[in-house]
Amino acid sequence: MSGAQTVGAARQRIHGIAHRTPVHTCAAIDREAGARVFLKCESLQRVGAFKFRGACNAVLSLSQEERARGVITHSSGNHAQGLALAARLAGVAATIVMPHDAPEVKRAATLGYGARIVPCDARDREAVCAAEMERTGAVLIHPYDDDRIIAGAGTATAELLDEVGDLDALFVPVGGGGLSSGACLAAEERGAPVAIVGVEPEGGDDARRSLETGRIVTLDTVPATIADGLRTRSIGERNLVILGRRMAAVLAVSDDEIRAALRLLVERAKLVVEPSGAAALAGLLSGRHALPAGARVGVVVSGGNVDPAAMSRLLG
Amino acid sequence: MSGAQTVGAARQRIHGIAHRTPVHTCAAIDREAGARVFLKCESLQRVGAFKFRGACNAVLSLSQEERARGVITHSSGNHAQGLALAARLAGVAATIVMPHDAPEVKRAATLGYGARIVPCDARDREAVCAAEMERTGAVLIHPYDDDRIIAGAGTATAELLDEVGDLDALFVPVGGGGLSSGACLAAEERGAPVAIVGVEPEGGDDARRSLETGRIVTLDTVPATIADGLRTRSIGERNLVILGRRMAAVLAVSDDEIRAALRLLVERAKLVVEPSGAAALAGLLSGRHALPAGARVGVVVSGGNVDPAAMSRLLG
Repeated sequence: MSGAQTVGAARQRIHGIAHRTPVHTCAAIDREAGARVFLKCESLQRVGAFKFRGACNAVLSLSQEERARGVITHSSGNHAQGLALAARLAGVAATIVMPHDAPEVKRAATLGYGARIVPCDARDREAVCAAEMERTGAVLIHPYDDDRIIAGAGTATAELLDEVGDLDALFVPVGGGGLSSGACLAAEERGAPVAIVGVEPEGGDDARRSLETGRIVTLDTVPATIADGLRTRSIGERNLVILGRRMAAVLAVSDDEIRAALRLLVERAKLVVEPSGAAALAGLLSGRHALPAGARVGVVVSGGNVDPAAMSRLLG
Repeated sequence: MSGAQTVGAARQRIHGIAHRTPVHTCAAIDREAGARVFLKCESLQRVGAFKFRGACNAVLSLSQEERARGVITHSSGNHAQGLALAARLAGVAATIVMPHDAPEVKRAATLGYGARIVPCDARDREAVCAAEMERTGAVLIHPYDDDRIIAGAGTATAELLDEVGDLDALFVPVGGGGLSSGACLAAEERGAPVAIVGVEPEGGDDARRSLETGRIVTLDTVPATIADGLRTRSIGERNLVILGRRMAAVLAVSDDEIRAALRLLVERAKLVVEPSGAAALAGLLSGRHALPAGARVGVVVSGGNVDPAAMSRLLG
């Protein structure tokens, strides 16, 4: 690790490398929500997801000695691609331990960014990753339980608040808790009064239960949801601490609610969005978090990595 | 009409009503193009297309007396929706003469914006429109051969040049010539050296031929192309004058080239784009307009009004 991580410092570190993503508004979504909604379009981030921010901040926070050792993670999804690209841009070697059954498209993208892939059985990923670390000395960049990743993810919220000013609430999806704890950190640093509201898939409400009990609740099985980016069994230790300090609420949404939000984002806001990327909007539209009339609300559209045929099927 | 129209004045008029659309970059597109490409995302404009800019400028340029008479046009596409919304926001009545065979989704959207629709046979649209104007005294807002529409459309280029600075070239689709002549006007007003390059569908090269001969060439039939927004038989008189002064080149692209550009925009840039909206990028990628190595190039992504199933079929 490389000392204290702040969102402000992460922002300077990734400036000009990560995109400053656009904030989009859509009258049809405002009408549905009964609020003024600002969509922070992380689907338009490099590699198509907010994950690039944390990966980029993590790689750029490495010491020279750590850079020489290279980085490693285990992931079959957006974090793999984010870390692979961030490492390539910095001239750092990246190893991704990836389950055999990862989608070929994600495997190809990760290879395309120049990472070395170590295939494994899904249930062995952590063990294989540990063995590789032992063998190569590579530095682990955990997908969410990592201060560098959290601060990097927080830059999305910092940019949004800079651009649109104070918000009554900000809705973010919660998987492992990297994006949401980053949002909390950004609000803390800024002293912004915004209520951070986390959104989980139904049947995957471990973050809410973890915050209620003050300890990490781990689901017995991976939650069944169309939001593949939110199929995590628990949040991380660092994430729990930060969420516990600052999170206003966590609510759950059904697949049908995610699908309806996805439809609005694709058909009305004209954004290619993956199901996880529609979860936060689904949370807002559920009405489960009460808002004042005419509220100003941020929504993080966290990713866009879905192929057009799958998107069409989801909306069919 | 209401006096001289400049892009600068149009910009002030539509400020805060039309979106200032984001400029998006995408490393995969830069690689394909061998250039630094700035995508001006008019697919993210209100009503999902640049057409709202001109319609908004036109309605806001009306005198009080003209506002009271209401506005009228004939269109089955994005101009209908743009004018319907611009009129509703200004409290002006709008009549759209629309062929019976217009897509139901566009009919519904136009009605949703509060316009009155007068159905007609496709071949009678101009006659029906003229009869309605006669009967009601409504003010015609032509889709492209109109100084207010051209100046309004030019605001997209003015915003782009403001945001990214000088460009070597700007690629724009050419249907009736509203967007492209607006781009020329914006470059003229700014004294910008940018080469404006128009892109037409193969078999619909009336703009190139019109510019070569200095008079409007009208195609015998509507060009067969997947780019439904570019199925025009000729450009307008005002458009020809402006294009003749300032346009660097016009080139043609095939449906396959449009499809390949569409795939990059959807799969890599994560934008929902209609085929016409991918034509300008197809023109850049065709290499038919020579560019210096490492050129800085603008591309107008003109619209996003396509349903997800159709988009998936186009890319299938």
